[in-house]
Amino acid sequence: MTTYSRRTFIEQIGWGVGGVMASPSLVAMAQEQANVFDGKKLTIALCGLGRYANVLKGGIAASQFCRLAGIVTGTPAKAAQWKKEYGLPDKNSYTYQNFDQIANNPDIDAVYITLPNGLHKEFTLRAAKAGKHVIVEKPMAFTEKDCQEMIDACQKAGVQLAVGYRLHYDPHHIELKRLGQQKVFGQVRLIEASLGYRLDGISPDDWHLKKAMAGGGPLMNLGVYCVQSSRYVLGEEPTAVTAQFGPVTMPHLFKEVEENITWQLHFPSGAICTSSCTSNCNIDRFFASADEGYFELEPALSYGPFKGRTSQAAFTFPVVNQQAAQIDDIARHILSNNPLPAHISGVEGRKDMRVLEGIYKAATSGQKVKLV
Amino acid sequence: MTTYSRRTFIEQIGWGVGGVMASPSLVAMAQEQANVFDGKKLTIALCGLGRYANVLKGGIAASQFCRLAGIVTGTPAKAAQWKKEYGLPDKNSYTYQNFDQIANNPDIDAVYITLPNGLHKEFTLRAAKAGKHVIVEKPMAFTEKDCQEMIDACQKAGVQLAVGYRLHYDPHHIELKRLGQQKVFGQVRLIEASLGYRLDGISPDDWHLKKAMAGGGPLMNLGVYCVQSSRYVLGEEPTAVTAQFGPVTMPHLFKEVEENITWQLHFPSGAICTSSCTSNCNIDRFFASADEGYFELEPALSYGPFKGRTSQAAFTFPVVNQQAAQIDDIARHILSNNPLPAHISGVEGRKDMRVLEGIYKAATSGQKVKLV
Repeated sequence: MTTYSRRTFIEQIGWGVGGVMASPSLVAMAQEQANVFDGKKLTIALCGLGRYANVLKGGIAASQFCRLAGIVTGTPAKAAQWKKEYGLPDKNSYTYQNFDQIANNPDIDAVYITLPNGLHKEFTLRAAKAGKHVIVEKPMAFTEKDCQEMIDACQKAGVQLAVGYRLHYDPHHIELKRLGQQKVFGQVRLIEASLGYRLDGISPDDWHLKKAMAGGGPLMNLGVYCVQSSRYVLGEEPTAVTAQFGPVTMPHLFKEVEENITWQLHFPSGAICTSSCTSNCNIDRFFASADEGYFELEPALSYGPFKGRTSQAAFTFPVVNQQAAQIDDIARHILSNNPLPAHISGVEGRKDMRVLEGIYKAATSGQKVKLV
Repeated sequence: MTTYSRRTFIEQIGWGVGGVMASPSLVAMAQEQANVFDGKKLTIALCGLGRYANVLKGGIAASQFCRLAGIVTGTPAKAAQWKKEYGLPDKNSYTYQNFDQIANNPDIDAVYITLPNGLHKEFTLRAAKAGKHVIVEKPMAFTEKDCQEMIDACQKAGVQLAVGYRLHYDPHHIELKRLGQQKVFGQVRLIEASLGYRLDGISPDDWHLKKAMAGGGPLMNLGVYCVQSSRYVLGEEPTAVTAQFGPVTMPHLFKEVEENITWQLHFPSGAICTSSCTSNCNIDRFFASADEGYFELEPALSYGPFKGRTSQAAFTFPVVNQQAAQIDDIARHILSNNPLPAHISGVEGRKDMRVLEGIYKAATSGQKVKLV
């Protein structure tokens, strides 16, 4: 089993990763790039200080071009703690009520929304209205229509809209895209991509279990990663979907949202992607079979570290801080006044949402649902 | 990563493997057992000298308690070649027409049917009528009803009926059963088990592509392995199934049978098994997620060699000749006048067939099909 060379890696990963890696040449590249922006960093306000905000703060700390400059929270104790930890002035700390005043705060360039899913749309619209760039976590919203509304609002306000697509910046996933789209092993025919975490210890009051806040169960919270991986490995949009809800094994928890779901996406090339998303067990794997070989990751869709294998060789790239790489790329585009690449923008989020809506429709109706 | 000990392996595999392994203690055990049978071997006539008969002949050669004693073929050239290779007398070589005369041949104890699927039932009935024990390849027949007819015929004739379940004798699968049924990692929640071979080079005239001979596409030819693995890992019978035919990408080949199919089995415990069987790409994997860990094989369902992994350790057992181990165990039971274990008998084949029929019914109707 061989491992791909660093040179190959650098060529693939490009500039985006910056100093996240301990490579002298990449540090030099990042330094050069820092000079391009005159040392300016994208200043971010984290909106919603839950679990993922605590992951993201590590990403911001590890980034080259971003700085945590503000917070939005409904919990005074969290506000106090974060302000102390980051030396933030009181004026850069907002509640959900006074959030709109952020419009008058020149310290903040962008708002990163890590609120429960059900609040993504509202706060995207409010951030856009306040003239701030928006990074919103996945799933972008609950419907394709809501995604379009968010895209339109940001366009109207002249701000950029990114979705939190961290995996696009992991070299293992960049490699998956290359292997699939460049047909390195020929046409991909079958993908299996599944993600799940056992939530038996979760509080019955957790927002992930509430329809109004989560929009759904594991499909809403994890499904985007499976759908995304199949879409970017194939470089195609699915045309039809069948889907099935699984049984409820923890009825005290899963009263409002599905505990697990399986689905099958059909693509124009004839490729199929089968997936499971579940809250009753741990699963984290991606496999693609193509005409002349296969490629896979396991772990595959979590925060890593990932392990890759093709029918010819193992591949394990350096561990990248996914969040740091992601926000640095967003910052590069915003700081240089360039539009965000489509594949990390609201347009991409809307495409995913169309698929997620179709999966729910197929699972609910028991019918095959056309997606185009 | 640790590997399981030989002692553990021997305890699990038991006597069945005989001298297939190069272990002095096992050779001694086999020798002892050979004495029990007074040196007698189960004499087998291979019925249908296609691809799988050529695999099986290696199994017979490697076995301790079996001997190739006859052949049944419609091709004179094959008859000549096999007779020469094995020194078989003319009287032990049959055609499909004069096959029933095998009733008068004391040289043959059992008939191993490796004919196209569509002939399994007919030749099982004829072999039983001739007073010969029957080993029939999977899929046992085309319907549950046909399987019952075959079981009844063998019972009436006082002969035993085995199905070619080679994987029950591979130590990796014995380990899967142990891990699942003994809940070593807790209750299994989700299984992914898929098997496929790309058949783009196959002749359009091959019987595997003909509905009358194959009974179906990859579900009939490969699906039993996926269904079996989920059934024996869980130790449960599925209660419902949903299924979907995939697109046809090679229409010049797949005019009569499906090119690929996906399905989801639901089990009483709440566990789900999702599977794909396909003729348009290679796939060969098994994964089970349980409450406190996972276990997987890849390759998983082919002839091996297999590689196993749990959430705690890798496991790779010695390579076993699956066919030799299988027929030796069948021989041990028949030579000692003991009934075959249910899990390799016609009853097991009938259970699988119920599931396969349900999968086709679900895929054809688009409806969830109850199996009990």
